[in-house]
Amino acid sequence: MATASRAGTRLDLYRDLARQLRVDSIRCSTAAGSGHPTSSLSAADLVAVLLAGHLRYDYAAPADPANDHLIFSKGHASPLVYAMFRAAGAITDEELLTFRQLGSRLEGHPTPILPWVDVATGSLGQGLPIGVGIALAGKRPLAAPYHVWILVGDSESAEGSIWEAFDHGGHEGLSNLTAILDVNRLGQRGPTELQWDMAAYAARIRAFGWDAIVIDGHDLAAIDDALGRARRSERPTAIVAKTVKGKGVSFLEDKEGWHGKALDKDQAAQALKELGDGPARTFEVAKPPRWTRPAPRRTTPQLKSYTEPVATRKAYGEAIAALGAAREDVVVLDAEVSNSTHAEDFKKTAPDRFFEMYIAEQQLVAAAVGMQVVDLVPFASTFAAFFTRAYDFIRMAAISRANIRLSGSHAGVSIGEDGPSQMALEDLAMMRAVHGSTVLYPCDGTQTAKLVAAMADREGISYLRTTRGNTPAIYKAADEFPIGGSKVVRGGGSDDRVAVVAAGITLHEATKAADELATSGVKIRVIDLYSVKPIDAAALAAAAAATGGRIVVVEDHWVEGGIGDAVLAALAERGARDVRYRHLAVRRMPGSGKPAELLDAAGISARHIVAAVKELVA
Amino acid sequence: MATASRAGTRLDLYRDLARQLRVDSIRCSTAAGSGHPTSSLSAADLVAVLLAGHLRYDYAAPADPANDHLIFSKGHASPLVYAMFRAAGAITDEELLTFRQLGSRLEGHPTPILPWVDVATGSLGQGLPIGVGIALAGKRPLAAPYHVWILVGDSESAEGSIWEAFDHGGHEGLSNLTAILDVNRLGQRGPTELQWDMAAYAARIRAFGWDAIVIDGHDLAAIDDALGRARRSERPTAIVAKTVKGKGVSFLEDKEGWHGKALDKDQAAQALKELGDGPARTFEVAKPPRWTRPAPRRTTPQLKSYTEPVATRKAYGEAIAALGAAREDVVVLDAEVSNSTHAEDFKKTAPDRFFEMYIAEQQLVAAAVGMQVVDLVPFASTFAAFFTRAYDFIRMAAISRANIRLSGSHAGVSIGEDGPSQMALEDLAMMRAVHGSTVLYPCDGTQTAKLVAAMADREGISYLRTTRGNTPAIYKAADEFPIGGSKVVRGGGSDDRVAVVAAGITLHEATKAADELATSGVKIRVIDLYSVKPIDAAALAAAAAATGGRIVVVEDHWVEGGIGDAVLAALAERGARDVRYRHLAVRRMPGSGKPAELLDAAGISARHIVAAVKELVA
Repeated sequence: MATASRAGTRLDLYRDLARQLRVDSIRCSTAAGSGHPTSSLSAADLVAVLLAGHLRYDYAAPADPANDHLIFSKGHASPLVYAMFRAAGAITDEELLTFRQLGSRLEGHPTPILPWVDVATGSLGQGLPIGVGIALAGKRPLAAPYHVWILVGDSESAEGSIWEAFDHGGHEGLSNLTAILDVNRLGQRGPTELQWDMAAYAARIRAFGWDAIVIDGHDLAAIDDALGRARRSERPTAIVAKTVKGKGVSFLEDKEGWHGKALDKDQAAQALKELGDGPARTFEVAKPPRWTRPAPRRTTPQLKSYTEPVATRKAYGEAIAALGAAREDVVVLDAEVSNSTHAEDFKKTAPDRFFEMYIAEQQLVAAAVGMQVVDLVPFASTFAAFFTRAYDFIRMAAISRANIRLSGSHAGVSIGEDGPSQMALEDLAMMRAVHGSTVLYPCDGTQTAKLVAAMADREGISYLRTTRGNTPAIYKAADEFPIGGSKVVRGGGSDDRVAVVAAGITLHEATKAADELATSGVKIRVIDLYSVKPIDAAALAAAAAATGGRIVVVEDHWVEGGIGDAVLAALAERGARDVRYRHLAVRRMPGSGKPAELLDAAGISARHIVAAVKELVA
Repeated sequence: MATASRAGTRLDLYRDLARQLRVDSIRCSTAAGSGHPTSSLSAADLVAVLLAGHLRYDYAAPADPANDHLIFSKGHASPLVYAMFRAAGAITDEELLTFRQLGSRLEGHPTPILPWVDVATGSLGQGLPIGVGIALAGKRPLAAPYHVWILVGDSESAEGSIWEAFDHGGHEGLSNLTAILDVNRLGQRGPTELQWDMAAYAARIRAFGWDAIVIDGHDLAAIDDALGRARRSERPTAIVAKTVKGKGVSFLEDKEGWHGKALDKDQAAQALKELGDGPARTFEVAKPPRWTRPAPRRTTPQLKSYTEPVATRKAYGEAIAALGAAREDVVVLDAEVSNSTHAEDFKKTAPDRFFEMYIAEQQLVAAAVGMQVVDLVPFASTFAAFFTRAYDFIRMAAISRANIRLSGSHAGVSIGEDGPSQMALEDLAMMRAVHGSTVLYPCDGTQTAKLVAAMADREGISYLRTTRGNTPAIYKAADEFPIGGSKVVRGGGSDDRVAVVAAGITLHEATKAADELATSGVKIRVIDLYSVKPIDAAALAAAAAATGGRIVVVEDHWVEGGIGDAVLAALAERGARDVRYRHLAVRRMPGSGKPAELLDAAGISARHIVAAVKELVA
């Protein structure tokens, strides 16, 4: 009797909280005039039981490293997120009603400008793979006590990235990870593929190595039991909850045409009447266990310098290995190409902080985002071309204010025989257009090592573009390469006739051209634009001033969006006028061939630079 | 006895072909000095039985619409592709030995510069989702007799896109689609996640609604039986073949460290000795059934023109509906947001040519690529922001020389309350950097309709950027909008003080600014740059010449890679000098708010344009 009564009390508490979450989801979205109340209502019972019965989170101390992590992968259920924060006492009712207003922290989809939000969601299919990263980090290297809970929508299970996450969660045995699937049968424009075929969801998830518990997502006792089992399980668990979209409001329940639509005032009044609009209150949330995270050991990395030719991808591998030896917070992830990107060098140094993500670039970047949530310093690598696979994750990482470091190898036509599918020719354009990004493109080993070290302490999304083949040593161990800087490697006087701006592989073509031109008495300035973003506008403007505006840009990238565009924009913003410009970049679809053949065929080899310079000075 | 003997003969034939495929895979990669022989050897038996026993393909008539389709999703097995073409008599041995040389059609990974290759592969996880598109088209609207065979690597099953394809194949019941999984246990750098856990592969695939037949991938009779069952099955079928990487050569079999590595001459001689290097010959491939594809009905589309405000996304929906009514070859795909992109308008007109791809943008674009393989004219739509999810597929589509049309709605901060996760702010950068792409950004309904019609006949990847909110009607029904053109909507005389370049939503801010400036006597030229790529460099140069180089670009996009960069590049390539430039673009991370509030907060509203113009003329 006593047990039944306590259970009854607990269920009453859940019921009260669920009612309040529904009421507040409707109130805030109606006040905003937009939002997703019905997607919030379907999950309200799941979230109520989680918040009041299972989550361990100190809303007064969101930075507590022992806190559980809760991510709404279905970020459009933001009314429910904010209703939950209000119920937990984290925000006031007044703030709740600022939902979606200019300047409010309560944006249309949650972002980490709120201290209780780990990452931005709203592009579907990202929360679960990010959760994999947080759970991986919790398991090793952190050995943290937290549990990771991800609320997943049924519609977003059509995203392949969700299955990358189920795959990795299963493969790594992430017992500290629970996916809660809100199967409300309706997507934006109509029924989902599987509708309420709970057996099909469960079979898929189990085949990927997870436990699956199928429940009625409005049965508070069943939810309570499932969440408890999920936390105790020794395997990753998915709670597959059959729910009703718009649950609790008669005219919304399981109705099409209500996705992403707020109730008007009359409808809201009717809905609140049905739900019972009692006084709101604050609900207690369990605190996490006391756990102090050991401060990571950190010494100065012993970076190599190079006097012999080396591939910048190899120098990357050696630099992260040195970082890994010096800093316990550095982690490395790779997409099954670590022998090409040379991330394997790190694995040898710090195997417990190396993560094999297999050929799943979305999961690769998502896991990196997850790991920085818990203050690790992730470097993620694959072929530069294949980061295109994860562009949505990179874009969203910027909205998440994430600090991640990406290294893309095998850039440009200079890779040679493998052909265009393996050549990154759009990566500079893609990465420049990420908010707050840093884009680096080293030309030799010593420079690579120093830039990699700088990336470790860089905020935001930083990207390193590396080259497949060996390149000559240009720099000395004492040279410094501040982000936002550049180097003049030939010329530099007031008698330079033309400035050639290059980076990475083309820097070496430019120096060859400079040396050849020097023999015929034409002095040029060669600028190594290793920092493509931020860009050294001052050095470019000075070069333009010295050369009468004669600028050649040469890059192993498509014409659009790369170094050429960056240089012109920098000069224009700087107010440089009277620029005479030649742009050597890849303009035709390349095929296979030897690296030198392809550089020449693309018109970006030394002889083309010589010709462009001569044309400009003619 | 007679039957057993015929079977024996058939198996002998398969064995001979498999041997020859292995020999030629080694010969061509050794001649090239690079390539993936071991990945070819594991699949040689599968491909031999398919080619000689099951494929229906006229290698002398690759354009025959009844031909089966065979795609190597594991494109790195290109030696096997080319060995197969040689065995079928499509190429000579001499050409085979040009593998990976500059100018050869036999590139490192296959591309459609070869007439027997449908699409470029080499970025893993793409062949199967493209196959879904070809199979969907074959089922409806074409009702074609072809079967689609996709050779899938085990490593690439880690890509979520493979599971998007299994999901869609199962959901649509694509009985004309067979996936052949080459489970050779070894990836690039070591074992795959599942290694030879054949039961796990089969369970996953079956859970996604396919039949799975597990076989020994070197048992010719078992392969023969499985391929026959797959073609006859009324459901999509996966043949899950346990294979050995490097099969047939003792020192390669199941060995790590041999991925993507050619044998040297001595090793090749040893391998050929083991395989038995007999004389090569041509093998007969069954011809497809005779089938004439009806010519699609095609009339002139009845496009609407608009005199009242309308959202360009709505005008897009109405334009594709008109196209669909007029042309039987037009198909439309959408990623579960057709009520937002307005692709639903097409669905009402031509439901049999509308394809719901659910929230799976990679599969969305892949299916469009597949449909253009069989000469349909696909338009694919989702929120512009979510095409970032499919960037690798778009990049590869360009290498496939594919003709596809993408429409991205909800561009920029002007979407308002939903916040940054839903705002495309990098799409212009991303799409400009696609080889041979066309990038269009209309500002009103009439212009949208005409641009959509032009896209239908456009080669390559064309992209339309549409706006969420209503925009005023600017143009008349008789106005024309050639791709590569622009329009002067204010000013145009030699007394224009400044040229403001805008497109889409900001065009209306620019006209407001022009009208306000006119009241204070400052004449400006407003250029509607609806064709961002190709760009109207002549009009821009003329504007620069008329205004003393005073140019303002205003765009609802990040600073990098969009209209500003495009304009500067066009002016620079055109030799325009002495440009005084102001760039109004999104520089800070936006939040939620009303569209007008967000345009203003981003600094791209009319009042900011007025200020920039005043600054330039001061």
